Amino acid sequence: MARADGFECFALSFRYGQRHGVELAAARRVAAAFGARHAIVDIDLTMFGGSALTDASIAVPHHGAEADTVLADMVLADEIPVTYVPARNTIFLSFALAWAETLGAGDIFIGVSAIDYSGYPDCRPEYIAAYERMANLATKAAVSGERTVRLHTPLVSLSKAETIARGLALGVDYGMTHSCYDPDPAGAPCGTCDSCVLRRRGFSEVGVPDPLMTRQWA
Amino acid sequence: MARADGFECFALSFRYGQRHGVELAAARRVAAAFGARHAIVDIDLTMFGGSALTDASIAVPHHGAEADTVLADMVLADEIPVTYVPARNTIFLSFALAWAETLGAGDIFIGVSAIDYSGYPDCRPEYIAAYERMANLATKAAVSGERTVRLHTPLVSLSKAETIARGLALGVDYGMTHSCYDPDPAGAPCGTCDSCVLRRRGFSEVGVPDPLMTRQWA
Repeated sequence: MARADGFECFALSFRYGQRHGVELAAARRVAAAFGARHAIVDIDLTMFGGSALTDASIAVPHHGAEADTVLADMVLADEIPVTYVPARNTIFLSFALAWAETLGAGDIFIGVSAIDYSGYPDCRPEYIAAYERMANLATKAAVSGERTVRLHTPLVSLSKAETIARGLALGVDYGMTHSCYDPDPAGAPCGTCDSCVLRRRGFSEVGVPDPLMTRQWA
Repeated sequence: MARADGFECFALSFRYGQRHGVELAAARRVAAAFGARHAIVDIDLTMFGGSALTDASIAVPHHGAEADTVLADMVLADEIPVTYVPARNTIFLSFALAWAETLGAGDIFIGVSAIDYSGYPDCRPEYIAAYERMANLATKAAVSGERTVRLHTPLVSLSKAETIARGLALGVDYGMTHSCYDPDPAGAPCGTCDSCVLRRRGFSEVGVPDPLMTRQWA
């Protein structure tokens, strides 16, 4: 969406101690496909723990075999789940802010959604607005009036189905992407974590098959 | 100051690609002396560069042999210097926010000062206030009403001389501390960077010798 809007893109991913590197490989593929320079920042959030994604002693929740609509509603009705990583988007955005300043860029895109999501506080529009306000007081470029920092959240008010449809219209091959919290060692999605459940409902509503589901996993 | 106010203290330092590890060794000594648990986060800000502290190709500015008062006024009158690290305090505070949430803590102290400082935007009270507001929208603990995040900046309106006097009253051995941007390999301060100049003027105004100046460097 950023590229379609005419932006030159620089993509930033984080090796933060998440359970697997599958999403980083997927990010690399997506960045390459769209001609974006891609950087991976190494940070160790396992030293703080407090999340199923960064603490091996906390299990990722998996759901049973209920019908998908019921499952998805259950995911959405839950309180903030154990996959919440303390201050994760705040940390991610802070590195993006640093990189943007050294690149001479003012526009930062983040793919948060406050629809069909798991209730993470750092995905909501009021959080993003407060971050943007802070960012414009934080950096030399912003304070000197040289450049305004703008946070873009093009997915924030889209349902998963709408996000998928928008991506398909822009030529995204969803077979390159990844959503699962807990893939098997070969990278195949588990199909039963919150993220898999929400993705499956999204594809189901759009009425197209998810290419990940027919991909061969070594 | 936090300990004197009755807080149990957890100290956080960053190995972020700064030119030297002298300040980390000093932080370790200070934390141990005050019985605070100390953690060091490894992040690589050299990948972004843009500062004399994180890019070996940008030199730390050194000042000549002018009288100290003139020197200090010169430092303070300058525009934001090349020792500014893009978004550094924003990144530091974001890790502190993550650790605070997993510790169950709500009070975060940061030693920024907007008096006798080098004009860094992320040391000013309006920046800190905006960060605090954002932080209270960012985390599960804050959003659930379980805990309010408070940023404390006990040094923000103190001159360097006042900071030094306050520390002396609380029993700080300034021989354990470190301020220099560009120490020699043994750790001896250069005496001519902005930070050394401001420290020297502070001690001079208090009228006590800086124990660092009489310390033996191997």
